[in-house]
Amino acid sequence: MTRSNEPPLSHLDTAGRARMVDVGGKPVTDRRAVAEGRVDVGPEVAAAIRENSLKKGDLLQVARLGGVQAAKRTADLVLLCHPLPLAHIDVEATLEEDCVVLTATVRTAGQTGVEMEALAAVAGAALNVVDMGKSLNPAIEIRSLRVVEKTGGKSGPTRHHA
Amino acid sequence: MTRSNEPPLSHLDTAGRARMVDVGGKPVTDRRAVAEGRVDVGPEVAAAIRENSLKKGDLLQVARLGGVQAAKRTADLVLLCHPLPLAHIDVEATLEEDCVVLTATVRTAGQTGVEMEALAAVAGAALNVVDMGKSLNPAIEIRSLRVVEKTGGKSGPTRHHA
Amino acid sequence: MTRSNEPPLSHLDTAGRARMVDVGGKPVTDRRAVAEGRVDVGPEVAAAIRENSLKKGDLLQVARLGGVQAAKRTADLVLLCHPLPLAHIDVEATLEEDCVVLTATVRTAGQTGVEMEALAAVAGAALNVVDMGKSLNPAIEIRSLRVVEKTGGKSGPTRHHA
Amino acid sequence: MTRSNEPPLSHLDTAGRARMVDVGGKPVTDRRAVAEGRVDVGPEVAAAIRENSLKKGDLLQVARLGGVQAAKRTADLVLLCHPLPLAHIDVEATLEEDCVVLTATVRTAGQTGVEMEALAAVAGAALNVVDMGKSLNPAIEIRSLRVVEKTGGKSGPTRHHA
Amino acid sequence: MTRSNEPPLSHLDTAGRARMVDVGGKPVTDRRAVAEGRVDVGPEVAAAIRENSLKKGDLLQVARLGGVQAAKRTADLVLLCHPLPLAHIDVEATLEEDCVVLTATVRTAGQTGVEMEALAAVAGAALNVVDMGKSLNPAIEIRSLRVVEKTGGKSGPTRHHA
Amino acid sequence: MTRSNEPPLSHLDTAGRARMVDVGGKPVTDRRAVAEGRVDVGPEVAAAIRENSLKKGDLLQVARLGGVQAAKRTADLVLLCHPLPLAHIDVEATLEEDCVVLTATVRTAGQTGVEMEALAAVAGAALNVVDMGKSLNPAIEIRSLRVVEKTGGKSGPTRHHA
Repeated sequence: MTRSNEPPLSHLDTAGRARMVDVGGKPVTDRRAVAEGRVDVGPEVAAAIRENSLKKGDLLQVARLGGVQAAKRTADLVLLCHPLPLAHIDVEATLEEDCVVLTATVRTAGQTGVEMEALAAVAGAALNVVDMGKSLNPAIEIRSLRVVEKTGGKSGPTRHHA
Repeated sequence: MTRSNEPPLSHLDTAGRARMVDVGGKPVTDRRAVAEGRVDVGPEVAAAIRENSLKKGDLLQVARLGGVQAAKRTADLVLLCHPLPLAHIDVEATLEEDCVVLTATVRTAGQTGVEMEALAAVAGAALNVVDMGKSLNPAIEIRSLRVVEKTGGKSGPTRHHA
Repeated sequence: MTRSNEPPLSHLDTAGRARMVDVGGKPVTDRRAVAEGRVDVGPEVAAAIRENSLKKGDLLQVARLGGVQAAKRTADLVLLCHPLPLAHIDVEATLEEDCVVLTATVRTAGQTGVEMEALAAVAGAALNVVDMGKSLNPAIEIRSLRVVEKTGGKSGPTRHHA
Repeated sequence: MTRSNEPPLSHLDTAGRARMVDVGGKPVTDRRAVAEGRVDVGPEVAAAIRENSLKKGDLLQVARLGGVQAAKRTADLVLLCHPLPLAHIDVEATLEEDCVVLTATVRTAGQTGVEMEALAAVAGAALNVVDMGKSLNPAIEIRSLRVVEKTGGKSGPTRHHA
Repeated sequence: MTRSNEPPLSHLDTAGRARMVDVGGKPVTDRRAVAEGRVDVGPEVAAAIRENSLKKGDLLQVARLGGVQAAKRTADLVLLCHPLPLAHIDVEATLEEDCVVLTATVRTAGQTGVEMEALAAVAGAALNVVDMGKSLNPAIEIRSLRVVEKTGGKSGPTRHHA
Repeated sequence: MTRSNEPPLSHLDTAGRARMVDVGGKPVTDRRAVAEGRVDVGPEVAAAIRENSLKKGDLLQVARLGGVQAAKRTADLVLLCHPLPLAHIDVEATLEEDCVVLTATVRTAGQTGVEMEALAAVAGAALNVVDMGKSLNPAIEIRSLRVVEKTGGKSGPTRHHA
C-alpha cells in the first residue's frame, strides 16, 4: 500500500509540520522580556475606573492579577512554547485618557526567552480589562499587544520600536 | 482594636471589591459570540505563510488550534469569568496582505454569555501567530482584538461595529 | 498464577477502592453552598492590612481573587470531585482584630452539591492570606475552614453550627 | 498581493483545517461510555503488585485515581474535544496474570458523548501503571486502549467488539 | 482629561498594587519546607477510617495523593507565587484519635522557597479528607494548617513553634 | 481509642503508601527520552488521512500538537511525577499502512528523567488520532505505547527492545 507516481501530499510530508525549537543545548541564563498593550475602554469606563465605581470592582487591580495568571499559563495557550519556571512576573496597568496601558515584565533563569510569557501576560491583562468594563461598554477594543524588549540569550538585548 | 474617628479606607470597604456576576437565576439558553482579531505579521512572515516555509510549521493551523485551547482556559485567564462547558469553538485564521485575520465563534448552552471565551480564543490564536513568526519578525504586533457579535440571553442579539 | 489458600489482600479487593459518587441520575437543580475560614495573621500583619502597606499589595483583594481561582480548580485538587460549571463564586475577606475572616458562596445549576467548591474557595483564599503576609509573620496559621451551609439537592437545606 | 494563476495551496484553503464538531443544537441527554485498557507489566511487577511491595506504593489504587484525573483533563489533551461537566468517572484496575486490566466508565448529562473522556481515563490510568512499575521493569508496554461501549445521543447504544 | 487639584486615588496609585517578589537575582539552591495540618473528622469517620469502610474508599491514601496534586497547582491557587519545578512532594496522613494529621514536605532546586507549596499540599490533602468523610459527617472542620519548617535560601533554616 | 491486640491494618501502615521519589539530591543534567506508539485506524481512516478528507481536519498535525500538549500535562496525569520544565518536545506522526505510528522525544535539563513525559506525549497523540478518526471508525484501537530510549542520569543510556 505504499504510494508512487503521485506528487507528495503536503500534509503527509514535513512541510508545515509543527515543531518546537529544541533548546536542550542552550545554557541556563538570566532572561527577561517586556511587552506592552493598550486597551481603548472609552470615556464612560475610564471615568468609572477613576471613580472606582465599576460593579465588578477595581479594574486595574484585577487586570494586573489576571495578567500574572496568564503568564503562568503560557505553555497551555501557545502550543509550541516550552513549560518554564518563572522568577518574576510583573504587570502594570495604568489609565491614560480613555486607554488602559499595560506593561508586563517577565524574568526567568532558563534555556529560552520569555517574550511569549510577557506577551501572554499583557494579553491576559487585556482580557480582564474587557471583562471588567464590558457591562458599561460592550465595544471595548484591545488595540495593541507587542513585545518591546528582550534580554539574555545569545543575541544580546533587543528593543523593538513601534 | 476597632477603628473610629477615621475616614473609611477604600481597600477595606466594598468599593472596588472584585465580584463575579451571579448568574445562578438565569435560564440555560443557547448562547453564541463572535470575536475578531488582526495581527500584522509583515511581508516576510506573510510570504513564509504563503510558502508554508516557517521553520516552526504551519502558522495558520497552529493559530487555530491554539485559539481553541485558549477558549477552554478562559476561566483561568479571566479572573471573574464563570467556568462553563462549551458546545462549539471555531477559530478561523486567514492571511490578508501582511495581516493574519482571526475570527472565533463560541457557543454554549449556559446561563451566561460566551463573549469572553470568543475573545480569549482570538487572543490565544494571536499569541500563537506571534510565536510562530517571531524568529523571522520579532516586531509582530497584535493590532486589534474585539467582540463583534453576541446572541442569546435577555438582551437579544447585539452587533458591535468598529 | 491464580491465588488460593490465602486470605484476600485488601489492596487487591474492593475495600478502600477510591470511587466517585455517580450523580448521573440526579436532576439538575440550583445548588448553593457557603464555607467559612479564619486565618490568624497576628497584630503586625493586621496593622499592615489596615494601612495597606504590605509590600506584596492589598491582601484582602488578592485573597478574594485567589479564592475565586481555587474554586475553579476544585476538581483538580479534590480527586473524587466532579468537574462542574459554576454560576457564581463569591469570596469575602474582612479583617476582625488580628484575624482575616473568609466567607465563600458558590452556586451552580448541577447534579451535585458545591460544598467542596466553597471550601476550596476559602482554602485558596487562606493560602493567599498566608502568602501575602508571610514576610512580616512567617508563623501565620490557618485556624479553621469549614462548610457552614448547603442548599439544593434531595436533602434540603442544612446548616452546620460550629 | 492577491494570488492568481496558481494552484490553491492546501495549507491555506480549508482542506485539513482543524474544526471541532458543533454540538450546540443537540439536546442535553444522559450519555455514558466505557473504555478498556491492558498493560503488560511482566511477572516481577505483577508479583510486587500482589505483595503490595512496590516502593512507590499501591499501583492499582494510584492507577485508578490517575485515571480519574486524566478524564477531567480530556479537553486539554484532545484538542478538538469539548470541555464538559462529568457526572461520574469510575476507573477499575485489576491484575490478571502479568497484565493490569483497566476499565473506565464515564457519564455526563451533556450535548455530546464521553467516549474520549473514558479513553483518556484508561490512558491516564495506564500511564500511572507504567510510572509505578518502571523502576522494576522499564519495558512495561501499554498493549491496548479502546472504547468498548457508548450510549446516549442519536445513534443509540453501540458496542465495539475487539 | 488629566487630573489635577485632587488627592491621589488609592486604587490608581501604587499603594496596594499586587506585586510578585522578583527572585531573578537569587541563586538556585536546594530548598525544603514542611507544613502541617489537622482535620477533626469526629468519631464516626475516624472509626470508618480504621475499618476502611468509607464508601468513597481509603481516605488516608486519597488525602495523600490529593495533597501531592495540590502542591503541583500552587501557582494557580496562590496568585503571587512563582511557577516552579519540584524535586519532591511527600504528604503523610495519619489518624490520631478523631483527627487526621497531615504533614507535607516539599523540596526544590530553585530561586525561591517552597513553603507555599508545602502549605498548599496540606490544604489540598485536608480538602480531600473532608470530601471523603462528608457523607458520614458533614460538619468536618479543618482545624489548623501552617508552615512549620523552611530551609535553604539566605535566611537559613527556620522553625516555627505553634 | 488506641488499638491493640489486632493485626495491623494495611491501609493504615506504610505498605502501599503512595510516595514520590525524592530527586532533590540529584544533579541537574541533560536528560532525554523517546517513546513510541501505534494506533490501528483501519483502511477507511487511513485512506482519509492520505486524502486529507477527514471532516475534523488534518489528523497527523492535530495528533502531533495534541501530543505536545499532553507532555506538558504529565504531572497532572501521572500522580507521582515531578513537575518539570521541558527543553524540547517533539512528536512525529506518520501513516504506515493502516496504522498511525507515533514517536515522541522529550528533553530537559533536570534532576529526573523524562520517560513519562515522552510516554504521555505519545498517549496524548494517540487519543487525538482516535478523536479525529472516530466518526469514520468508532473501533480504532491504540495498540502499543512504550518507552524505547532513555539517556542522562546515573544509569547511562538504556534502550528497550520490543
